Formats: sequence, C-alpha cells, structure tokens
Amino acid sequence: MDAMIEGRLEYSAANCSIARALEVVGEKWTLLVLREAFYGVRRFADFQAAIGCARNVLADRLATLVEHGVLERHPYQEPGQRVRDEYRLTDKGLELLPAIIALRQWGDEHLAGPEGPPVETTHRGCGEPVATELVCAGGHRALGARELTVVAGPGARRLDAAR
Amino acid sequence: MDAMIEGRLEYSAANCSIARALEVVGEKWTLLVLREAFYGVRRFADFQAAIGCARNVLADRLATLVEHGVLERHPYQEPGQRVRDEYRLTDKGLELLPAIIALRQWGDEHLAGPEGPPVETTHRGCGEPVATELVCAGGHRALGARELTVVAGPGARRLDAAR
Repeated sequence: MDAMIEGRLEYSAANCSIARALEVVGEKWTLLVLREAFYGVRRFADFQAAIGCARNVLADRLATLVEHGVLERHPYQEPGQRVRDEYRLTDKGLELLPAIIALRQWGDEHLAGPEGPPVETTHRGCGEPVATELVCAGGHRALGARELTVVAGPGARRLDAAR
Repeated sequence: MDAMIEGRLEYSAANCSIARALEVVGEKWTLLVLREAFYGVRRFADFQAAIGCARNVLADRLATLVEHGVLERHPYQEPGQRVRDEYRLTDKGLELLPAIIALRQWGDEHLAGPEGPPVETTHRGCGEPVATELVCAGGHRALGARELTVVAGPGARRLDAAR
C-alpha cells in the first residue's frame, strides 16, 4: 500500500475514525461481548458463561455499549423472577459485523487449529459462506492491500492548522 | 442475524478465531500501531510521534507484532547514527487491512465530525474509494447482518466432548 501522503506526520490523528471506533469497542472483552451478541446471546448470565470474564467487567462493558448505542436494553421476566434486562444489538451495532468477520477471517487463516474454523457465517438466502472483501466504487473486487492508496480525506487536519 | 445454533452455550469458545486474533492485535495501541504502518510509517520515532504513547508501551507492542509475524524488522542506518530497525508489514500483516478498514468505516459513519472522514483509501488502479463489504461465495454482495446465519464450523467443539 502506498504511504498515505508524503509526510504522514504533517497531519493530526486527533479525529481519526479508527481511534474513535476503538474508544467504543477497542478492548478485548468488549469485542468478545459483541461476538456473543452476534451469535445470538442476549442475557447477562449467558454472556458471562460464554466469555468467562468477571461480573463487574462484563457489567461495565455492557453499560459502555448501551451508552454508545451499540446495544439496547429490553426488559424480560422469567416466571417467579424479578424483571431483568436483556441486551440486543442496535442497527449501529449490527454495522460492526464486517469488522468482526474480517478479524475472524484473519484468525481463521492464521491462527485456527488443524480442525479448521469453529464458526462459519453463511448467507441466509443461498447458504453459501460469507466473507469480507475490499471493493472499490468502480466495481473492482477482492482488492489486496498492495492495490490501495491512502489519501487525506475531507476531514484531514494539517498539524500547523490544528495548532 | 440468526442465533448461531440453538444452544450457543453447548459449544466451546476455547478455539475461537476472533479471540485468537484479539490476543495478537486486540489492544488499542496495537491497532493504532497497525494503522500507522498502513499509512506508511516504519520508524520508531515516527510511530511515537504519530501515536503519542509511551516509549516502553510502543516498544512492547512492536515486539509483540514482530513475534507474531505481523511486522518484520529491517535494519537501516542514517549517516553518523547507529544502525536501527524499521518495521514493515508482512503479508500476514497486510491481511489485517480489511479489519482495519471495516473499523474505520464504522467510525467514519458513526463518529466522524461534520468535516467528514480524515482519511480515505482509494483503489490505485482507478482512483475510486475502497470499502469492505460482506459477500458470499454464491456471488451475492453488500450483505447486511440480518441476511446472515451463524453456523458451527468444522472446528466447533461441543462442550460435552471438550470436557
């Protein structure tokens, strides 16, 4: 991939969308919570059983995801129990799926055991396996990193102007 | 998206490819190091200037990425200076780009300021902007999360068998 621009360091990273996304989801337990949410888990005890992190850590991560509109709480009540909340992905949360699948693909390719990937995602319409792919607006598909160039976008801030 | 399988909790997460990928890259500073590497940054001082993390944290993250074959060291020498290492993405590292771009897309969509995204990625061949997309092997493109189903893969381990 081409270097972004001669002089990457002339630009501010203060409004970087990757850093901002990581402020919401860039923490191991948070991404594992999202993994389970994509797998259909909704209830606190089930998240805990699936992920195995401490209750207070899980409660904190769920609250952060609700605060940022990635998950939303829906009350439910089992017979004889108090009302509890379950956690469902919002549309904003569902839009994180390409990032999760891209990360899983990389793990499947480089880190899976000899038995192969433990999980697959298929297209409900035709049953075929699903993957993330880099595509361009000109219709070229399955692009590799070496075919790309990084350029300053409309929100790029030159450091001399940002000071 | 359909729940994975009735009874997510009957399966082990021990060999999950997402968790394994996160063991390598699932840390905020590590993903920011990778961001800069994709932008063309190669030298320790430039990573530090771009990211702004402590030297020891940066040294630790670079060493982890080298250890896992995501970056590799190449010696260089400026006139009058000692030989130093620069850090270049390997092919394994370049394959993380779809995950980074997917995360950036989500940040651009939900967290960018009114001025728009600070960085764009274009296809070198035609100049058009590049994005990640969910595609299936049956040729269906731009799939949304609600069109997908998660199923157990060949490496799925039932918990009763794993015990």
